[in-house]
Amino acid sequence: MTMSPAPRAVYLDNNATTPCAAEVVAEMLPFFTEQFGNPSSIHAIGAGVAPSIRTARERLQKLLGAAHDTELVFTSGGTESDTTAITSALRALPERREIVISAVEHHAVLSVCEHLAKHEGYKLHIIPVDGQGRLDLKAYENALSENVALVSIMWANNETGTIFPIEHLAQMAKPFGILFHTDAVQAVGKIPLRLSNSAVDMLSLSAHKIHGPKGVGALYLKRGVKFRPLFRGGHQERGRRAGTENTTGIIGLGKAAELALAGIKDENIRVRALRDRLESELVARIPNSIVTGDIEQRLPNTTTIAFEFVEGEAILLMLSRAGIAASSGSACTSGSLEPSHVMRAMGIPFTAAHGATRFSLSRDNTDQDVDQVIAVLPGIIERLRAMSPYWSNETAAPANFQPAYS
Amino acid sequence: MTMSPAPRAVYLDNNATTPCAAEVVAEMLPFFTEQFGNPSSIHAIGAGVAPSIRTARERLQKLLGAAHDTELVFTSGGTESDTTAITSALRALPERREIVISAVEHHAVLSVCEHLAKHEGYKLHIIPVDGQGRLDLKAYENALSENVALVSIMWANNETGTIFPIEHLAQMAKPFGILFHTDAVQAVGKIPLRLSNSAVDMLSLSAHKIHGPKGVGALYLKRGVKFRPLFRGGHQERGRRAGTENTTGIIGLGKAAELALAGIKDENIRVRALRDRLESELVARIPNSIVTGDIEQRLPNTTTIAFEFVEGEAILLMLSRAGIAASSGSACTSGSLEPSHVMRAMGIPFTAAHGATRFSLSRDNTDQDVDQVIAVLPGIIERLRAMSPYWSNETAAPANFQPAYS
Repeated sequence: MTMSPAPRAVYLDNNATTPCAAEVVAEMLPFFTEQFGNPSSIHAIGAGVAPSIRTARERLQKLLGAAHDTELVFTSGGTESDTTAITSALRALPERREIVISAVEHHAVLSVCEHLAKHEGYKLHIIPVDGQGRLDLKAYENALSENVALVSIMWANNETGTIFPIEHLAQMAKPFGILFHTDAVQAVGKIPLRLSNSAVDMLSLSAHKIHGPKGVGALYLKRGVKFRPLFRGGHQERGRRAGTENTTGIIGLGKAAELALAGIKDENIRVRALRDRLESELVARIPNSIVTGDIEQRLPNTTTIAFEFVEGEAILLMLSRAGIAASSGSACTSGSLEPSHVMRAMGIPFTAAHGATRFSLSRDNTDQDVDQVIAVLPGIIERLRAMSPYWSNETAAPANFQPAYS
Repeated sequence: MTMSPAPRAVYLDNNATTPCAAEVVAEMLPFFTEQFGNPSSIHAIGAGVAPSIRTARERLQKLLGAAHDTELVFTSGGTESDTTAITSALRALPERREIVISAVEHHAVLSVCEHLAKHEGYKLHIIPVDGQGRLDLKAYENALSENVALVSIMWANNETGTIFPIEHLAQMAKPFGILFHTDAVQAVGKIPLRLSNSAVDMLSLSAHKIHGPKGVGALYLKRGVKFRPLFRGGHQERGRRAGTENTTGIIGLGKAAELALAGIKDENIRVRALRDRLESELVARIPNSIVTGDIEQRLPNTTTIAFEFVEGEAILLMLSRAGIAASSGSACTSGSLEPSHVMRAMGIPFTAAHGATRFSLSRDNTDQDVDQVIAVLPGIIERLRAMSPYWSNETAAPANFQPAYS
């Protein structure tokens, strides 16, 4: 009797997190046990680590197209970067009492700003999006004024991949002296950036979304931007972020940035083609499926498809059993039965939003991965719909189907 | 011609940072590339990581003798834990406008509190220490009142190893409804703790001080203690610390905690004996050398010896050239030419404080390490003193020497 090999796991949840690249692990390893010193130390074991941190900073600078490596402050990840940027801006411009964000921000921005509005009296402008997740530019323009301390708008949405016109938005905020922050956790490494020519003042990123380790990220701070640290104490990061440097994490992030820059063409050609094939084949095979977000202005690796009259959670569990990892949106809010705030902001009907399933690819994915999803998902949706009391009513009139984004 | 092997590096700066234990690295490795999922994800690749995080939390619980594993919140390290504890206490008790700390706190506590005093109008009580680094209990008692939101006093000092009577101090604060926090970054893993029987409300610790990775730590929050998160967003850590879990770091911290608990007897017998031998031999061989801090109530691994009429930085560089890593105090403030605030708080004279040198051992150290320091340091001090214009005046009257702590 021969055993057929277990099917290779298909990982399509790269917007939640990515595996560390082997090269990243190799680069980090010596810094755990050999070059383990505290880079602030005066002796050779400590001081010897500093050049590797400098290399990491330069690699990240290149990925972002930043003018200076000193514009980068290493943090513990996207959430810390976001929190730091927001609280810094409000402390730097204390006379301004308004904040502008989009309705589809990550919770790391949304929750902080809602808390500030509720408990510290800030006026919060939440700019809506249309059915395709595009920002309401008129509402944005109307919200800008010299009362606004901070705009914080994500570069690309984690659920739909929709890309906002960040450069344009930052330029619009400039005449008012507003500090402009963008959560670029999903954009970095997937689309080319050139911050040296940008009006963006602050940008958040995270290593584990680009095949680096978890627990490390960075905040880009354009030279000259007013800044107030969140962590005070030691003089690390030029006094902008106290605490012993996470040397292995920083070095891993640097290597991940180098690999991301080298792979950005592959991401935008091969990965995009994989995503497009996955999307078009699924929509063709599964009736009443809706691609959400802005199809044109979108990350190359992301598609979120809403399958009407099925529960996203059930889809994910059955996919998981078939060896396929996908997501119903943000991993940070999974477990909640509510459709995500992103789906709600786009006005996706409940019957569809509940079945929204995100496939987020990376350079590790192959044609086989896409084939496997195409092979199993139509059957899964069919079985789940067969159990749904709602679906039986609808099947009679599939021609009435209206995609939410039309 | 035979080459003699390069002398093994002698690392005596374990209060700055420690090498990761090999077992810690081995435990972390699979979580970079194989079990790399986001533990908040619903699919198997993510959800499969959660049990390992639970194990880490339980291991850390055991090291601290905490009543519940849910009392632990993983953070990015000591500085984040300190900042979180301080800001949480002030937000939880907004009507109280006073803070009590000691004069020898780590900068991660001192700088934050000084900033709050200067910019947010808090009244800061800085409790002095005596010549041996012992807290002025009378001044402490006088500072306590129902106006105080927070006491933050370190369990053990990073420079001298002096241990404060934390349990007693916490008990004294209790009747006033004050929140009691302790920075135990240096105490954890070196002295036995039993938080289940303690009046301590919050405690900070860091993995990289106990042979775990950098960039991860924890905040202990006694069940029922009022808490306000620093990072909002995702629901990680029961809503107490948003942000994708640093799974590898957390798992590494857990393993390091397990090893620390297993090694705490060795730390307090063998490592203590090594430290005592190093200290007594150096003081016997080097005239005008002063052991700082509370000799009795002290971490087993730490000695800071002030060598009069020499520059600490010169000592460290010459030791480093001889393959020995030591420190002039906190790595976070190295590079500064001022004697540390800890030495100043104890009233160590400038002529001695400038030459204060910290040797901090760990379970990795051996008799050979101690022998090597004893062999080279007396010569180093002699050569440096020979170059000092001050020393020549003093050598004539060594009998006049008074140790600062007598």
